[in-house]
Amino acid sequence: MTPPEELPDALPDVDPDDLRREGLVVPPASPTADPVPHDGTGRVELAFTVLDRSPGAAPGQESSTERRVRVPPGVTVFDSASWNGIAIDSTCGGHGTCHKCKVQVSGSSPITRHDARTFSASELESGWRLACLVQATRDLEVLVPPLTTRPKAATVGVGRQVILRPAVQKRYVELEEPTLEDQATDLDRLLAAITDLEPRPDLHALRRLPKVLREGDFKVTAVIVDEELVDVEPGDTTATRCAIAFDLGTTTVVATLLDLVTGTPVAVASMLNRQQPFGGDVISRISATMMDPDALGRLQTAACETLAELAAQVCAEAGVDPHAVYEVAIAGNATMTALVLGIDPEPLGVAPFVMTTALPPSVLAEDLHLGVHPRARAVFFPALGAYVGGDIVAGMLASGMDRDKRTRLFIDVGTNCEIVLSDGDRIVSTAAPAGPAFEGGAIRCGMRAADGAIETIRLGDTVELGVIGDVEPRGLCGSGLVDAVAELVKVGLLDASGRFVPEADAKEIAPALHDRLTMIGQERVFVLHRPTPGADPAECVVLSQRDVRELQFAKAAISTGWTLLLEELGLEHGDIAQVLLAGSFGSYLSAASAVRIGLVPKLPVLRIVAAGNVAGEGAKMALLSVRERAGAQALLEEVTYVELSDRPEFNDRFVEQLSFNGG
Amino acid sequence: MTPPEELPDALPDVDPDDLRREGLVVPPASPTADPVPHDGTGRVELAFTVLDRSPGAAPGQESSTERRVRVPPGVTVFDSASWNGIAIDSTCGGHGTCHKCKVQVSGSSPITRHDARTFSASELESGWRLACLVQATRDLEVLVPPLTTRPKAATVGVGRQVILRPAVQKRYVELEEPTLEDQATDLDRLLAAITDLEPRPDLHALRRLPKVLREGDFKVTAVIVDEELVDVEPGDTTATRCAIAFDLGTTTVVATLLDLVTGTPVAVASMLNRQQPFGGDVISRISATMMDPDALGRLQTAACETLAELAAQVCAEAGVDPHAVYEVAIAGNATMTALVLGIDPEPLGVAPFVMTTALPPSVLAEDLHLGVHPRARAVFFPALGAYVGGDIVAGMLASGMDRDKRTRLFIDVGTNCEIVLSDGDRIVSTAAPAGPAFEGGAIRCGMRAADGAIETIRLGDTVELGVIGDVEPRGLCGSGLVDAVAELVKVGLLDASGRFVPEADAKEIAPALHDRLTMIGQERVFVLHRPTPGADPAECVVLSQRDVRELQFAKAAISTGWTLLLEELGLEHGDIAQVLLAGSFGSYLSAASAVRIGLVPKLPVLRIVAAGNVAGEGAKMALLSVRERAGAQALLEEVTYVELSDRPEFNDRFVEQLSFNGG
Repeated sequence: MTPPEELPDALPDVDPDDLRREGLVVPPASPTADPVPHDGTGRVELAFTVLDRSPGAAPGQESSTERRVRVPPGVTVFDSASWNGIAIDSTCGGHGTCHKCKVQVSGSSPITRHDARTFSASELESGWRLACLVQATRDLEVLVPPLTTRPKAATVGVGRQVILRPAVQKRYVELEEPTLEDQATDLDRLLAAITDLEPRPDLHALRRLPKVLREGDFKVTAVIVDEELVDVEPGDTTATRCAIAFDLGTTTVVATLLDLVTGTPVAVASMLNRQQPFGGDVISRISATMMDPDALGRLQTAACETLAELAAQVCAEAGVDPHAVYEVAIAGNATMTALVLGIDPEPLGVAPFVMTTALPPSVLAEDLHLGVHPRARAVFFPALGAYVGGDIVAGMLASGMDRDKRTRLFIDVGTNCEIVLSDGDRIVSTAAPAGPAFEGGAIRCGMRAADGAIETIRLGDTVELGVIGDVEPRGLCGSGLVDAVAELVKVGLLDASGRFVPEADAKEIAPALHDRLTMIGQERVFVLHRPTPGADPAECVVLSQRDVRELQFAKAAISTGWTLLLEELGLEHGDIAQVLLAGSFGSYLSAASAVRIGLVPKLPVLRIVAAGNVAGEGAKMALLSVRERAGAQALLEEVTYVELSDRPEFNDRFVEQLSFNGG
Repeated sequence: MTPPEELPDALPDVDPDDLRREGLVVPPASPTADPVPHDGTGRVELAFTVLDRSPGAAPGQESSTERRVRVPPGVTVFDSASWNGIAIDSTCGGHGTCHKCKVQVSGSSPITRHDARTFSASELESGWRLACLVQATRDLEVLVPPLTTRPKAATVGVGRQVILRPAVQKRYVELEEPTLEDQATDLDRLLAAITDLEPRPDLHALRRLPKVLREGDFKVTAVIVDEELVDVEPGDTTATRCAIAFDLGTTTVVATLLDLVTGTPVAVASMLNRQQPFGGDVISRISATMMDPDALGRLQTAACETLAELAAQVCAEAGVDPHAVYEVAIAGNATMTALVLGIDPEPLGVAPFVMTTALPPSVLAEDLHLGVHPRARAVFFPALGAYVGGDIVAGMLASGMDRDKRTRLFIDVGTNCEIVLSDGDRIVSTAAPAGPAFEGGAIRCGMRAADGAIETIRLGDTVELGVIGDVEPRGLCGSGLVDAVAELVKVGLLDASGRFVPEADAKEIAPALHDRLTMIGQERVFVLHRPTPGADPAECVVLSQRDVRELQFAKAAISTGWTLLLEELGLEHGDIAQVLLAGSFGSYLSAASAVRIGLVPKLPVLRIVAAGNVAGEGAKMALLSVRERAGAQALLEEVTYVELSDRPEFNDRFVEQLSFNGG
């Protein structure tokens, strides 16, 4: 996704009126009188008064709602509103072209040429402006007039209200046929009829234009994506507008087909990433490209095939013509994003862990062979660092990390664990190498969360096991591992240092369970499940002393991460209003157990929330609203990435965090 | 070529400083005080005082030159200067990014954010501005300080001095290697080192970036085309920068390989357009697409193959790697442009003669299979109408039709004849269907200008023939046809109405020639060349009565065109300071004969100039200077296209023009 900021800066803004106005009013000596520029940090507060008129009510008879929101300085009033679910009239989506987003702003705000064309001198004087052109560089009071048209909105992500304004737009027009007196070109004729958008033509659209216009008796639908006219279709096709949101995970890939007219998902499909044969985690896939010059190409193909197959599936399931998919959004970590784009990931895998770019440009879905509309674009999310990628930025968008005044901690647990902390003003993030323990790796009886995996454990007089698929237990998945350790700590069979207590103490502490504490070879293990009475421990599902150590290291890596982030912002555990556990693992994990082993800060379990697949939700939001997409861009500026590996205090903290002091 | 204007308008210009400054200084009531906007017609005059400091001279010891130039209102001071060969320091080419084009301007001019960053308050007060951001909306006096670096310039077109500023730029940089303390992305690292340009990355460049940076020990050359970073090359390759200018004619295609570093052509090649099998003129090629659905594709392929073969030829001839060709410019008429882009030309061929677009977007040369750099762009010229295409706009650029104060008439003679008239303020243009006579078509002994074609004729006591290739005359080409008729009118064997005089009178009028006046069947002919003494007229090269009629109709169509244009601007023949005859035909035509038959206005022959292949020259200029390219864009606004076919007075004028009253 190319940040809109790039374009205006790349070119001088030389509208004559605009310049004359500037020229007219800039007394050359005045720069001294110029207010001190905002330093760009922190937040500014906007107090919205939203007027609402019940249908049929006369002007004046309005009800009004007050809303206070806080945004980074420089965000437009229009964005500040949309990001917080406050609807303002607009059809151009905040590009200054439709002149509909009228608001009244306190104090003296800038007047752009668009304002001057839209409002009378007295209206300008009383603070009326176009919301998409007023930047909130100070606290503002904003009056929002009643909507002339009710905008559609959808609830996405962690309870986010998204006002629909997709990059994909359609306009149905009925044109006059050309004559010798009116030889306007086909393109000019079409664009003149589209009053609220000013798209650039794309060659594909130009190739279709003459035939489609004439075959459609000059009644056609223009398909516009962002600033580009990508197609013309005969007749009125405005009812059909789709897009696909991809969560491109290292392990699993999820596709959601969105109806952009209603904002609703119409089909979902998921499958394993076809890159699996190259290894389970990003490091092994990066290594593959370092050992075999062809691997990069094959990894790219594998990723593209995965996306294409899912695209075909969701379209078939919903009975949608793939050519009606005009845009796709792809949320993936930095390595997945590099691989799907065919960018060499090697620098991501070796110190100093450098990305090629934080902001991948959008590409034609055709170049990725996705089989959707030939001119559909694939857009990506910016990445904060080599190990805090676009999937996390999408997740932050979906969970509103940048919109919420509360202090919140975002944790995506996995082989690489991403952590984000916001105090409502500042946002910091880091990555912690947790290792494979949570995915069952390096654990004696570890396995993925599949049929036969023990996912929950309760220890009392008996052992209560929750098993996926209600079948004979075969092993232990991540959430089960955390439960097992947490429960053993609770009943006291594991001490705070993570050692199994001596045989003698065990009998006393937990008479009903101590016989499960036994040995395999030289290693002490706790038997969670015996296939047959008196079965040899080696044939049982057990938790070994080494397993406990593995988990200790994994959780210590993570808790060291958020501990250092809390220190960075000068916060205590108790200051945290909410902990968001992202990803599927977060959904299965027992909050109580997570607290007990110290994987998350010591907090009431109600403050710990499973956020679900927030990356996929963020991808949806970017497709449903160009304003949300701009919000994702903004995160790149707002969030500070903290590299932990070179912190001197890292090791001390890590050692402190090894113990189970959460109990 | 997408007009720069499109971008800023499509997006709100929301630079905080910029807006604060506007906001600070716009008294809301002031719009009334706003000066009346210039109506955009006519010209404004800029008086340049250009300071020059001889090497080693101390500041203050400057010589100065005065230059007055007139440009359309709204053109920037920077463009006004470059278009007139006045050099102003700049490395970004007028995009407001390098902040080097400092000038002092009379009166109070607008202050943009770039000015405010570049100059002190007192400098701003005394009128210092960045020339690329000041629009000439009124007459101005401009002081140009001595150049800090001498810009290269090249002489192109009809004596045009072009200051080199190609869209293709290279920057060699030596970068610090990343560390854990400095994890800046490869892209940010590269862009930070390029101080005067702000390119957008292209996926191809991103794919190469990590490897090239590391293989080149972080010493690399960035290749930037327009606003786009298209490649990175290891080491310093700044000495190699090429582009190809194509004149895509209906009959002949010419390619010129340009060294953009020196601005010099290094190789030229030409060949017949491979579309020939589909017919000799645009109408027959358009008809082909109407009769056969596959013809459009095959015509596009034929055009692309022609361009690709020429590209390979010029690169081989100059020993240049085709991948060092980073941009190509294609000047062709509206039909050729549509066909090479694969756009259906049918609407160009049938009333009301409508183009798909006046301004074809630039495309990847790769999509045209030109075999140059994979990310090279192919740029096109805007067209004024279905029959005044990009080739004519390129020709107007090369001949400076919009920069010259003199009243000038531009005529490109051919099957379709394009005519442009400028009085120094207004520019009008039209097209006249002259038919094939000038190419030897529909002429009894007509042939193309090839070996054996009679190209010049003088009649006195004998007949003097100029024959191409000094071989036995085989026929009559266009210029020979014009000479023949003109000479016969001069000696009196043809009367003003275009009839051969009666046998009796002929004897008296031209005793030495009258025996050449004879009959073939019922038709009177004049024998120009007898292969053998007493050979049968049917075996001779003759001019027939019908040939004379054909020429009359052709020249009447053309002279009716410029007659109506003169009336449009209220001008007489005598007001015309110069007639430019474009194209190869113009080079061979005898000015005296053209005047005598009334093909061009009655003027001293010295005012009639052969301009040569101006389309190709215009294509070169667009590649050598982005400012000249902007000039071509501007022509789209400046030139008024006059459709003649629906003029009531057309027929009367046409009949008047049939007679040979030029004598």
